[in-house]
Amino acid sequence: MRKDFGGKPFMYPQPVLIIGTYNEDGTANAMNAAWGGICGADRIIIDLSMHKTTENILREKAFTVHMADVKHETEADYLGLVSGNKVPDKLTKAGFHTTASAHVHAPIIEELPLALECELVHQTEEGIVGKIVNVSIDESVLDENGKLDPDRLEAIAFDPMNAAYLRVGGKVGNAFSDGKKLM
Amino acid sequence: MRKDFGGKPFMYPQPVLIIGTYNEDGTANAMNAAWGGICGADRIIIDLSMHKTTENILREKAFTVHMADVKHETEADYLGLVSGNKVPDKLTKAGFHTTASAHVHAPIIEELPLALECELVHQTEEGIVGKIVNVSIDESVLDENGKLDPDRLEAIAFDPMNAAYLRVGGKVGNAFSDGKKLM
Repeated sequence: MRKDFGGKPFMYPQPVLIIGTYNEDGTANAMNAAWGGICGADRIIIDLSMHKTTENILREKAFTVHMADVKHETEADYLGLVSGNKVPDKLTKAGFHTTASAHVHAPIIEELPLALECELVHQTEEGIVGKIVNVSIDESVLDENGKLDPDRLEAIAFDPMNAAYLRVGGKVGNAFSDGKKLM
Repeated sequence: MRKDFGGKPFMYPQPVLIIGTYNEDGTANAMNAAWGGICGADRIIIDLSMHKTTENILREKAFTVHMADVKHETEADYLGLVSGNKVPDKLTKAGFHTTASAHVHAPIIEELPLALECELVHQTEEGIVGKIVNVSIDESVLDENGKLDPDRLEAIAFDPMNAAYLRVGGKVGNAFSDGKKLM
């Protein structure tokens, strides 16, 4: 028996994306976004509404996208609660440190091990579209073969129905492979 | 120490979306997509490239989006490996059964407990944009308060770097709340 819930954004999982940008004065800003996704081999779309981050992206033509993780769940939530207009030093208050991306004019948050460095492609009705020009991953979350280990990354997902964060990890199976059993 | 990986779609988590559509002859089709996300309070975008599913959506102006789960990981992977053009009865081969959505002209896969029923809004450079007109959830994954329980849903995520599927679940914290500790 199924129940109807109306038109709601109940996709699972949704990412918890920490978007890094530079303010007009060169200081770093960051916010938390769950609406967005990959839309091409090197493209990402993020629906941000009108935030300081949107202004920054349109001016600087660049942004970074970090994955929030279990270790920084409180800090990631904080970045979504507080406006960069009201608390200009919110990144510092969250205990984060930044370095400049070598590829785009946007900050990388050192404490978050996975960052997508993006150039602005355009702004559409659905959101800001970025071209991912580089992915930067801290060695602490790479395995012996130099590949990202999701169980070391410990990314979190947003649970839109319960306003909660969920754990992502624990391999269930192999993509483009397990389904062959049914062929 | 961070390492560079170039321009890759390495977002974590990425969803595993099973897109349901009707073929021209009224039979049901489904495919597996990981590129896409929420882009508004009742909007979803999905990058599908040119597939039978895209043809079906543009003709029927509707589609459903189901969340792949641990229980049907093999079946979900199979739907992504096999083209509906070559195997018209791939849904049956996967052991899935469908019923017509009461809200849009698209099939609901009975075995998958969470489905978004969508009307086509438009097709953009980034993908197909749908308006979610209803969310249909099977009671088996609802908790005592009638809310979705992610640990019963057991949605899976796509791991793009390792071509694997990951588990999603296990509450880590509260959104719009935990961050207040830092305010």
